[in-house]
Amino acid sequence: MSVKRRDFIRLAGAGALAAGMPAVASVPVSMPEGHANDKFKLAIAGYTFLKVGIDDALAMMKRVNINLLGIKDFQLPYNSSDEAIAAFVAKLKDNGVTPYGVGVVYMKSEAEVDRAFEYAKTVGVNLIVGAPNVDLLPYVEKKVMQYDIRLGIHNHGPDNPLYSSPDDVWASVRDLDPRMGFCIDIGHTTRLGQDPVALARKYHNRVYDFHVWDTDQPVKAGKCVEAGRGIIDFPAFFKTLRQVGYSGTVSLEYTKDMNDPLAGIAESIGYFHGVLDG
Amino acid sequence: MSVKRRDFIRLAGAGALAAGMPAVASVPVSMPEGHANDKFKLAIAGYTFLKVGIDDALAMMKRVNINLLGIKDFQLPYNSSDEAIAAFVAKLKDNGVTPYGVGVVYMKSEAEVDRAFEYAKTVGVNLIVGAPNVDLLPYVEKKVMQYDIRLGIHNHGPDNPLYSSPDDVWASVRDLDPRMGFCIDIGHTTRLGQDPVALARKYHNRVYDFHVWDTDQPVKAGKCVEAGRGIIDFPAFFKTLRQVGYSGTVSLEYTKDMNDPLAGIAESIGYFHGVLDG
Repeated sequence: MSVKRRDFIRLAGAGALAAGMPAVASVPVSMPEGHANDKFKLAIAGYTFLKVGIDDALAMMKRVNINLLGIKDFQLPYNSSDEAIAAFVAKLKDNGVTPYGVGVVYMKSEAEVDRAFEYAKTVGVNLIVGAPNVDLLPYVEKKVMQYDIRLGIHNHGPDNPLYSSPDDVWASVRDLDPRMGFCIDIGHTTRLGQDPVALARKYHNRVYDFHVWDTDQPVKAGKCVEAGRGIIDFPAFFKTLRQVGYSGTVSLEYTKDMNDPLAGIAESIGYFHGVLDG
Repeated sequence: MSVKRRDFIRLAGAGALAAGMPAVASVPVSMPEGHANDKFKLAIAGYTFLKVGIDDALAMMKRVNINLLGIKDFQLPYNSSDEAIAAFVAKLKDNGVTPYGVGVVYMKSEAEVDRAFEYAKTVGVNLIVGAPNVDLLPYVEKKVMQYDIRLGIHNHGPDNPLYSSPDDVWASVRDLDPRMGFCIDIGHTTRLGQDPVALARKYHNRVYDFHVWDTDQPVKAGKCVEAGRGIIDFPAFFKTLRQVGYSGTVSLEYTKDMNDPLAGIAESIGYFHGVLDG
């Protein structure tokens, strides 16, 4: 029987229908087998919504049925009052969305580190996706221990010498608190000519988030395209996440058509679901 | 190496990049391996665009990178002049879109059969997706032979006693010209409690088009949902099309959110690509 839900025939009752018997009225919709059970969760990185307001962003998330958001500071500035943060988080909740982290947060001073951890604590998340200056990492480690909030350092590929690659991140955090690890951006690793699947396999124990998007070229000039239209091997990527039992977030960061991103977001999310079912 | 394109490293040159050498400037974007080589083609059935004009429809097709359209009569009425048909087809071509067929065309008289074949001939397609009254089939067969245009009879599930199931179609066409066969609508077979994968395997030799969409329930009340969110086993469906070497069209017919269908079209098309890559 070639249907996803093994109770198809039992519930649908082709025989019952043929015999004119009433069909079962209500069959719950479910995600495909082997997909809803994955430990990792699809999410969206807030930068995706750079050119649209939070109301439109939440409508788009509802449309594509994704309920985890990484909050970016243009959505909720770092200097927001506690009341403003509470109101923002309440708005997300009212729309069925939960923040899974904040970031990418750049930190160039101890004061910015302090602010980032207070901000994450007030938002109520236990993950900062960030890029602290390397010389601040010992100070960041104290904050990680004090707040019990993880730091996933984001690699930015050929655009930025600060953590270009996950290897750079690893060199900086390997001897620090294990709550300091990675947000591996697989588009940027690809633009650096590095295989994101191998990197996911190598570093998965310290990865707390992935930024996922497809790119058309494995070079600095590589641009974001709808997932599946580019060169990244998402089937191998997701297979690896399953094999290693990755349990963090996998967050679409879509930066094509930023003034009108819904179609590309939807195609990308649909592609991920298809790969995960396929 | 876990990348889709085996020339990734050769072209990207991780070593070259690390050594500061210039990266290869241009790498052509390609569809994933094993996907561009499929004999069947993804398309969109015109009914998807019932509530949007042809300009918006063509813009949506461009957005999701699908270039085969099944023309529905609300887009191009059957009584259009030859000049109007030529202008319509030219508009499609100007937008990179090719018509793969026309339909669904209902035919309740010999005059309507005549009109349908003239219409298809003038459009320039060799496929009518249609539902002629059963008693007209001998007359339709003469037209099929005269025009060398195929007829794919569309099953409409529990909504319509005329060709409810592909089995009904088969009973009507099995002894007729082999150019008379199926457009199997897999959403409607599922709403009838019949497994579309088994039907695709059974009848593939006479199938010229599939109408594909997902449904939330295997009963008459089943509604269209974004592909992947419902109960149809698309991985098994596409696997079967590959196994049997199906070489026709696989046409999304998306009928949710018809006033604003782009997001659902994009998610569905992305899902199909993901399944085909996965």
